[in-house]
Amino acid sequence: MIVILNPNIADTSPEYAETINFLQQLPNIEVKKHVVLGAEQQLTEFYLLGDTHQLDQEPIEALDAVERVVRISQEYRILGRHSDENRVSGFSYNGVKFNQENAHVFAGLCAVDTPEHVEIMMKSLQSYGQVCTRMGAYKPRTNPYSFQGHGSTCLHWVFELAGKYGIKVVAMEVTHESHIEEIHEALEATGNPTGVMLQIGTRNTQNFELLKSVGRQRVYPVLFKRGYGVTLNESLNAAEYLASEGTSNVIFCLRGMKSSAGAPHRNMVDFGQVPVVKRLTRMPVCVDPSHSVGTRETSSDAILDVAHTAAQGLVAGANMVLVDFHPEPSKALVDGPQALLMSELSRFLEDMAASHEFYKKRLEIWHADP
Amino acid sequence: MIVILNPNIADTSPEYAETINFLQQLPNIEVKKHVVLGAEQQLTEFYLLGDTHQLDQEPIEALDAVERVVRISQEYRILGRHSDENRVSGFSYNGVKFNQENAHVFAGLCAVDTPEHVEIMMKSLQSYGQVCTRMGAYKPRTNPYSFQGHGSTCLHWVFELAGKYGIKVVAMEVTHESHIEEIHEALEATGNPTGVMLQIGTRNTQNFELLKSVGRQRVYPVLFKRGYGVTLNESLNAAEYLASEGTSNVIFCLRGMKSSAGAPHRNMVDFGQVPVVKRLTRMPVCVDPSHSVGTRETSSDAILDVAHTAAQGLVAGANMVLVDFHPEPSKALVDGPQALLMSELSRFLEDMAASHEFYKKRLEIWHADP
Amino acid sequence: MIVILNPNIADTSPEYAETINFLQQLPNIEVKKHVVLGAEQQLTEFYLLGDTHQLDQEPIEALDAVERVVRISQEYRILGRHSDENRVSGFSYNGVKFNQENAHVFAGLCAVDTPEHVEIMMKSLQSYGQVCTRMGAYKPRTNPYSFQGHGSTCLHWVFELAGKYGIKVVAMEVTHESHIEEIHEALEATGNPTGVMLQIGTRNTQNFELLKSVGRQRVYPVLFKRGYGVTLNESLNAAEYLASEGTSNVIFCLRGMKSSAGAPHRNMVDFGQVPVVKRLTRMPVCVDPSHSVGTRETSSDAILDVAHTAAQGLVAGANMVLVDFHPEPSKALVDGPQALLMSELSRFLEDMAASHEFYKKRLEIWHADP
Amino acid sequence: MIVILNPNIADTSPEYAETINFLQQLPNIEVKKHVVLGAEQQLTEFYLLGDTHQLDQEPIEALDAVERVVRISQEYRILGRHSDENRVSGFSYNGVKFNQENAHVFAGLCAVDTPEHVEIMMKSLQSYGQVCTRMGAYKPRTNPYSFQGHGSTCLHWVFELAGKYGIKVVAMEVTHESHIEEIHEALEATGNPTGVMLQIGTRNTQNFELLKSVGRQRVYPVLFKRGYGVTLNESLNAAEYLASEGTSNVIFCLRGMKSSAGAPHRNMVDFGQVPVVKRLTRMPVCVDPSHSVGTRETSSDAILDVAHTAAQGLVAGANMVLVDFHPEPSKALVDGPQALLMSELSRFLEDMAASHEFYKKRLEIWHADP
Repeated sequence: MIVILNPNIADTSPEYAETINFLQQLPNIEVKKHVVLGAEQQLTEFYLLGDTHQLDQEPIEALDAVERVVRISQEYRILGRHSDENRVSGFSYNGVKFNQENAHVFAGLCAVDTPEHVEIMMKSLQSYGQVCTRMGAYKPRTNPYSFQGHGSTCLHWVFELAGKYGIKVVAMEVTHESHIEEIHEALEATGNPTGVMLQIGTRNTQNFELLKSVGRQRVYPVLFKRGYGVTLNESLNAAEYLASEGTSNVIFCLRGMKSSAGAPHRNMVDFGQVPVVKRLTRMPVCVDPSHSVGTRETSSDAILDVAHTAAQGLVAGANMVLVDFHPEPSKALVDGPQALLMSELSRFLEDMAASHEFYKKRLEIWHADP
Repeated sequence: MIVILNPNIADTSPEYAETINFLQQLPNIEVKKHVVLGAEQQLTEFYLLGDTHQLDQEPIEALDAVERVVRISQEYRILGRHSDENRVSGFSYNGVKFNQENAHVFAGLCAVDTPEHVEIMMKSLQSYGQVCTRMGAYKPRTNPYSFQGHGSTCLHWVFELAGKYGIKVVAMEVTHESHIEEIHEALEATGNPTGVMLQIGTRNTQNFELLKSVGRQRVYPVLFKRGYGVTLNESLNAAEYLASEGTSNVIFCLRGMKSSAGAPHRNMVDFGQVPVVKRLTRMPVCVDPSHSVGTRETSSDAILDVAHTAAQGLVAGANMVLVDFHPEPSKALVDGPQALLMSELSRFLEDMAASHEFYKKRLEIWHADP
Repeated sequence: MIVILNPNIADTSPEYAETINFLQQLPNIEVKKHVVLGAEQQLTEFYLLGDTHQLDQEPIEALDAVERVVRISQEYRILGRHSDENRVSGFSYNGVKFNQENAHVFAGLCAVDTPEHVEIMMKSLQSYGQVCTRMGAYKPRTNPYSFQGHGSTCLHWVFELAGKYGIKVVAMEVTHESHIEEIHEALEATGNPTGVMLQIGTRNTQNFELLKSVGRQRVYPVLFKRGYGVTLNESLNAAEYLASEGTSNVIFCLRGMKSSAGAPHRNMVDFGQVPVVKRLTRMPVCVDPSHSVGTRETSSDAILDVAHTAAQGLVAGANMVLVDFHPEPSKALVDGPQALLMSELSRFLEDMAASHEFYKKRLEIWHADP
Repeated sequence: MIVILNPNIADTSPEYAETINFLQQLPNIEVKKHVVLGAEQQLTEFYLLGDTHQLDQEPIEALDAVERVVRISQEYRILGRHSDENRVSGFSYNGVKFNQENAHVFAGLCAVDTPEHVEIMMKSLQSYGQVCTRMGAYKPRTNPYSFQGHGSTCLHWVFELAGKYGIKVVAMEVTHESHIEEIHEALEATGNPTGVMLQIGTRNTQNFELLKSVGRQRVYPVLFKRGYGVTLNESLNAAEYLASEGTSNVIFCLRGMKSSAGAPHRNMVDFGQVPVVKRLTRMPVCVDPSHSVGTRETSSDAILDVAHTAAQGLVAGANMVLVDFHPEPSKALVDGPQALLMSELSRFLEDMAASHEFYKKRLEIWHADP
């Protein structure tokens, strides 16, 4: 059960005290506080855990500080879409809005290599009006003897270049809790020239200890990738670990599932589940066509499979596209064969913008009177 | 190796005789003739099987009747896309064109039940200008004690109703070679009021004996569904059985793959492979969103998952959509829970038409000079 | 609901007539007769289909001809294991007994090639006291241009060689209903020197029309292979098609499932489900280690993976092993790389016999008082 | 390339210095030292990474300190089975030997709950001569709101009870690097009454940061569970992370793979790959039948599926069985439905011992002269 307080109510007010006192004396109920920082207001929610099915809603709703009460299912308590459609959804970070209605492209390098390549990438993005990118510093690799990313050593110059070219949000995978602090320090040291979206990779989808650490930080939004050996339901439950520790600014990313049915693609593209994630939760949904298809092949119509599948995600309502580009794919240290070329960036961005526009047109078709 | 003759060359001409004599004396080579009936011309191709890698192309190309010679890989010899992009692709049937560029919707009943329901469906389709439908008479069912379809007993009135409402092509699954003859006789008996596209279901994808029978008939085009336990490559090879027996007017249908990763959908939607099938073969590609998602659920944007995934197929270049509708889903004998309502038909068709138009816009974006 | 008559009751007796008259007047109930030919007696069962949950058992059990009545679940009506443990299970064919307690090895050629190879194989089997083998005449192949088996042309000499070396049962795949008649005629023409177990391959698991034809023949027992794209439940339902048409002498064969998790094996070995099939149905269970692992590799202990997995099947209660051998694997026309050598036959058979003996020892351990 | 030094050579000897000097001057080669602590001797190995294919083995083998040089493939450098069969394999820990030849059962509680239950379990194990058990203190759970294990609070009394009943090795999952230190401190604080085998769960198979931490500790052996969304090859590579950081005393555990083909079992049992892991690596192999089948069902022979599949693992050469028992499964906090009863322990252990003995008999069969 979620008890939602009136907006902007102060922790120090008597109404607040009355509410918390009332809730804490309920038998067999644990009370957990959750604060949602929206663009214009602060919202306080109390999660009542335990024996809630026998609780009476009325006396709680009668409290002065309480706006309303929402009964929730056992799953995805915070991130889930429950009976109350009016709950706050989406968030702003460093001036960029993320929600289930809009769409962003995060084109960039799978793995940071040289300042020259990073600069070429960011400069190009700026020239097309983009303010988001992806830049991998910490790379989890299947083989322990493969290149593992430049790690913290590259953060300063990556962030400075991002600032130089007006990039507001850099999506960056973290694989250990210490990386959060390293990123935080590097941003501080360079004067916060940009912002970071912490990415949880598919290998760490059920690394619950990492999720708890990332959940506790509450500063950076999180891009959470679906795990490839578990059901969708299990991945959504894992995302809830972030929220249960305090970070509910989470974007859920589909990235293909390992399956012999997916060949010749590297993974089986799972973007048919974009509408499912939006139905079950309030998270914006991202698609990662690069890791899903894992190839630069084009169809008989000369359009890249990466572009086709990304468009498929967007026309069904996806809110973000994570995509690998590289100035010289043959020199990329990680996943070069799937990276798109700088010469393809313009058309790719145009395709994505048009696909999101077409999604809005589809909304009109379906929302018109029959 | 394929030897393509000049168009409309007669079997009785001396050039034709010279060619066939030359080919038949080649050592360790089997010669197979394949005739492609296009809209405006007839094309004769000879397939050379066996020890072809040591054959010299030049003397064959020098023959008067020969237009050109194409070296092919071992796989998908007839249906595959080989080095020569100029080979005839697509076909016309009963006045309707099918190819890798256009798109058709086949909305209809998964299983024929009553004349009333069939008539409601066809009348609606006509009112929206549709000339294609799906109507299942022979239903393969998992459980031997389930309803197995009305079979041949319903064919006469189904075809007559199709004719009454201007339907040109009815997609209809066959599960035994005798069904081809039953359909043929019913069409003849009713004066050919409509046409039929023979459908091979996913359970029969590797029923090679059925494929050979269907391949030998050469009259009706075939809608070939991907098998759900085999790789895409194996399904494409199976389609080639049709072609190797003489029927190359084949549409390849993606219909979802069984996987624990697909839940809560019935199957894992595989429409990310639309561009793959078009790259590897010259077959038009169909998507079947009804059997893929298996549900009438809608996303948070109030659009049906069936519509979302169908749109995903089309914007990536799919050429056909097979979709279940029913006037009263609760009374449907097979797969009622996934059938769309007649009240949704108008918006569904509008969405599909817009999605195919948007695919053409994407072509423009990608074919423009960078 | 199954109505089981007293053993050996005659169709012409008045008790029989009374029973059938009583059953046929039941409202909304279809009556289906099923005759089980055991070694010593003939058993008649009536299957009541339809609205059976409101039927009263007592008046039926009171009929003179009726031994007892068994309520059954909707699934696997005939082949399933229902509440009554005393139903007849297993069968004899051509002097060989098959049931859920004993075990047989069917070693042989995946595909019949030359009389020399077939004779070497059968002679070896006889020398080790074996009376069963596998011999593939009709081979369904992924690629239409691959060798498809010698078909009916080899049947005469294969059966004659089988008779010469005392082989009682030859497992042989059929892929079309006409093959049953071809096999029947070849056996008759050669004086029935051996017997045949009709094999349904994994590609035809849900080829219901073939299953119905094979089910209707009632002469030859059937080796039914699990389908690789469907659930176990769906494969068991498919086997029931055989029984519903009259052939309940069916052995269910596990043969590995396609999965990226199975590599480096060709398929993912599924012999952990041997106890499941025996729990759910009364069918003897076969394992096919050759097609499951698809390799001649040995472990660090120098034992072949084929032998390891076959032993795994048997110690968990499997009743049959289907395994590929070949005198010269490099010359085998189909699946040579997985065939065992004649020099390995002796040890393989010894391993299998010991594994089945060990299963009996395990039974003793678990059936002892704790 | 691995350079293996003569046993027990001192780091301070001139031969050692000569070797290291020689290796360090090799161009484009990184040298990594790895010390293997065997029961009777200490072995020093140098791993040469980088451009090794053009290195000449002879001058290295000529060095006084060098016993021999082994060329290795790129994968599983330390844990893999390479051309040299004589490399040290297996290890001893707290008086218990683990290798690819013997077998141990680790029966115990999936999750520690009460001292009473833990004591009942350990007392029973002692009465059957068992010195190993499993006891889960840190439980990663799919749902963040589920019970997460007693964590460090239970360690003292669990270890003391283990010591009281002669348990030498407790397998215990860790999900965060801090757990290693907590376990270490608890063992020290209680006077090291027992030993611990650190378990990496399937959700953390590719949590490379955790693997590195566990790899660096070098004190406790590791039970490494296969990941369920990745290939076997990827899981083996992940295990190599442990070795690359210094811990090569690793046991590899098969535990079933998520698949719709596995139903009605919880996962698809993958014990057919026991011989594969032993062929590819030098790790002892464990099977976990409880999590693989996830049920207490028995087959028609009244033997538990858990016992059947565990026996399948052992007869194919598995070296360890991890299995859930519980005095009162209905009160178990985690995975109660799959736990075996104390009354089944005796027969289970007898079955496992007999299965391992039968494996040895199979070795005799296959190693006899044909």
